[in-house]
Amino acid sequence: MDIEKVNSMDFGEFVDVFGNVIERCPLIAAAVWSKRPFSGLGDLEKHFFAFIDGLPLSGQEGVLRCHPELAGRQLPWGRLTAESQREQSAAGLQNLGAAERLRFTELTAQYRTRFGFPFVLAVRLSDPAAAPRELARRLRCPPAQELRTALGEVKKICHLRLADLLGEQP
Amino acid sequence: MDIEKVNSMDFGEFVDVFGNVIERCPLIAAAVWSKRPFSGLGDLEKHFFAFIDGLPLSGQEGVLRCHPELAGRQLPWGRLTAESQREQSAAGLQNLGAAERLRFTELTAQYRTRFGFPFVLAVRLSDPAAAPRELARRLRCPPAQELRTALGEVKKICHLRLADLLGEQP
Repeated sequence: MDIEKVNSMDFGEFVDVFGNVIERCPLIAAAVWSKRPFSGLGDLEKHFFAFIDGLPLSGQEGVLRCHPELAGRQLPWGRLTAESQREQSAAGLQNLGAAERLRFTELTAQYRTRFGFPFVLAVRLSDPAAAPRELARRLRCPPAQELRTALGEVKKICHLRLADLLGEQP
Repeated sequence: MDIEKVNSMDFGEFVDVFGNVIERCPLIAAAVWSKRPFSGLGDLEKHFFAFIDGLPLSGQEGVLRCHPELAGRQLPWGRLTAESQREQSAAGLQNLGAAERLRFTELTAQYRTRFGFPFVLAVRLSDPAAAPRELARRLRCPPAQELRTALGEVKKICHLRLADLLGEQP
């Protein structure tokens, strides 16, 4: 899909296509539509990032809370979005051994309690061995720093999803 | 559900329960969770409203763009949320005659083009005869005024949905 196509979309189409580049936050895509026309991928993502940066602290935490738990509690009601499912599957987190998975789940619970949002990681840029290591490291970070790190991961995920939709190399 | 129950929810439960009191904007419920504990319905809704009021213009338009078209274009892919479906059904908009429906659809398209967001109306406080009248009236309003009116409707819908969830009289 080229950028002229993107610029020709009405808000309904735009939200249908880009509504989940920030996980479960179609509000953000719907807001970004106000900033059209876009000159390309970099310009488009700049507006997604600026919207997140402009949110109050509670809103930034809210963006993170809309993300699923990584390889965490079971989601029997199928809440994982197609994008998340594909990403987690590609990262091989489902292939963690039973003990590793239990340990990972314990640490994500600690993380959630400490920071008030789930552990978010751009798993496509990671590997199954790195995710538990990153989790253990980030669990010890000061909350303000960890909020910035987590939002950085949201932006990486957004970049990858936009690149997929526009058919560009990330 | 009483307010103690609400205050005891972790963010996952809270977003599951309140994620759609602002249509398709779980981000807002996820942000409001930061403001707990809540003293009651009035306090809870105050935080939803304050979040919307604090958004930049594009974000306020974004909230409106997450709403479905009232009795508008067909949604064969079933995107109408359960709440919207119930509300539109109760308002009897499905029972408009073919000519009225066509006229209504034409006016909602004009509205969308003029303002850049869909016509939002708290239909549970309305009746099938009033909705087309309101639409025709609001279509002539200045954009800044109409944005305020439309966000006022979002807040009425939010109030009704919260009252339902808490089992209180609206």
